[in-house]
Amino acid sequence: MRESELLGHIYERSRDLSTAFGDVVIGPGDDCAVVRTSSGDLLLVTTDQLIEGRHFEPDTPIDLIARKAIARSLSDIAAMGGSPSWGLATAALPEGYEHGDALFDAMAEWGKHWNCPLVGGDVAITSGPMVLSTTVIGKPHVNSKSQSNCPPVLRSGAKAGDLVYVTGPIGDSFESGHHLSFEPRLAQAQLNCDALGPDLHAMIDVSDGLGRDAARIGRASGLLLEIDASRVQLRAPASDWLKAFGDGEDYELIFTVTKDTQVEPQGGYCIGRVRTPTDAEPAGCVVIDPSGNRRRGDEFGWDHAD
Amino acid sequence: MRESELLGHIYERSRDLSTAFGDVVIGPGDDCAVVRTSSGDLLLVTTDQLIEGRHFEPDTPIDLIARKAIARSLSDIAAMGGSPSWGLATAALPEGYEHGDALFDAMAEWGKHWNCPLVGGDVAITSGPMVLSTTVIGKPHVNSKSQSNCPPVLRSGAKAGDLVYVTGPIGDSFESGHHLSFEPRLAQAQLNCDALGPDLHAMIDVSDGLGRDAARIGRASGLLLEIDASRVQLRAPASDWLKAFGDGEDYELIFTVTKDTQVEPQGGYCIGRVRTPTDAEPAGCVVIDPSGNRRRGDEFGWDHAD
Repeated sequence: MRESELLGHIYERSRDLSTAFGDVVIGPGDDCAVVRTSSGDLLLVTTDQLIEGRHFEPDTPIDLIARKAIARSLSDIAAMGGSPSWGLATAALPEGYEHGDALFDAMAEWGKHWNCPLVGGDVAITSGPMVLSTTVIGKPHVNSKSQSNCPPVLRSGAKAGDLVYVTGPIGDSFESGHHLSFEPRLAQAQLNCDALGPDLHAMIDVSDGLGRDAARIGRASGLLLEIDASRVQLRAPASDWLKAFGDGEDYELIFTVTKDTQVEPQGGYCIGRVRTPTDAEPAGCVVIDPSGNRRRGDEFGWDHAD
Repeated sequence: MRESELLGHIYERSRDLSTAFGDVVIGPGDDCAVVRTSSGDLLLVTTDQLIEGRHFEPDTPIDLIARKAIARSLSDIAAMGGSPSWGLATAALPEGYEHGDALFDAMAEWGKHWNCPLVGGDVAITSGPMVLSTTVIGKPHVNSKSQSNCPPVLRSGAKAGDLVYVTGPIGDSFESGHHLSFEPRLAQAQLNCDALGPDLHAMIDVSDGLGRDAARIGRASGLLLEIDASRVQLRAPASDWLKAFGDGEDYELIFTVTKDTQVEPQGGYCIGRVRTPTDAEPAGCVVIDPSGNRRRGDEFGWDHAD
């Protein structure tokens, strides 16, 4: 069973969670879950893994491994339009690994850097490759003008007619080292929450590839995201758009905005629009390639299952 | 570097966290961290790992692996006198592993069983053994009489003169299968929070062995826990007290109570007392063996580092 298939099963099974547990506002299936505390505060919670040989090469500098572990979870917080509050990290370290202290030190520093102090951790020894897990708890961004909480931005909020934006170029994340040095798009997401308010409809971060992740917004919203490949900017040295759409680990945000918004979206550019699906083109994503051919978004991307 | 040594470094480095981040009430180093939400709600947060070949044998039934993953984190919530709210779980699954769906299904069911719905997860493939991580977010127990929140019970709260209790027998957790079937001591902890109120001073769960974990209360409180080995009940089939003190994975709670409390502690029995340390016997734990010899608590136990 593929990772994304397995996650699909988990999400399907969790659909009734907010019925049985009233303080679960949004269960598994979005970039973060949303839960409600006793006094009514909303929390965003997300967890991720980083596995040696899969998400980073064994010779990667410790500081960059630590950075990526924290940054990936923060990208999920950004994708909900939130702010990070606290983090927890676990490490299963290979037998004889000598740098556990430096690794946790670096994770703690990157947590502080992004205003997300690490408050808990666990370390153990494994006979396999290193496995890190990070959990981040965040909160909705507070609108800088109204001082009210911005509601979490879900994958399911897109509306027919919306324009589709992405916060940066895509492709060659591994080759370029971007996957180790990307900046979680917290600032861009918060700017758009402030500026666009309820005109910001849906958001997701690009971990598995632009087409595949755009399709997740489409399916969650019951709509079709139509992306013009020719409008998508490629990250140097990427030059092959077909490959770039499938590279993944871009950690940019895709978001959809009311077509006739009076405000220009911040820190992103338009790559398409949201349409009503048809029998021939069901909910999800369609990519119009530079020759005018229409391809399903799920054809691109790798099975990374964030 | 041993696991416990590494964790010690992490705790040491995190001591200033609540100065720099005002909403971190208790940083790393106790059974849970304690953080404060915008409206002032206290949250308990804890994270743990379960590694194939280390914390469970490869042929362990999936349901029991899942049960242990959730129960261990709940034991940390119990040790703070709290109630669980929500959980998250990650799994690094060996290549070709066919039961990922059943595993997550079982973790979700055990979460619900203990009123701790799983709201988030991540799955990925590893070339090594299975690594699970669980994060649980809880809250202080609400006193059933006063309806007010019980303050989190820390390791550092013991006072000289306190009596030391444990909630059950210890030893042979692996041999007896107890490590897969134990009940997290949530109910006992909550009963004592209700009944004893401020007379309940300090608490910890026994994961690395009675002597070693009692020493953690002692060091955190700057005091000496003196335990009478002859008063400690052994879990069948354990018969060797020396081994039992070192077995670990008991997941019982050690707690200390005002000597002259008017209320009988619930679901536990007395095994010792808290004394002022001396140069010859510094803060930590001393175990008086059946022959009257005094041994340091840290001599027992295994390096499991919860």
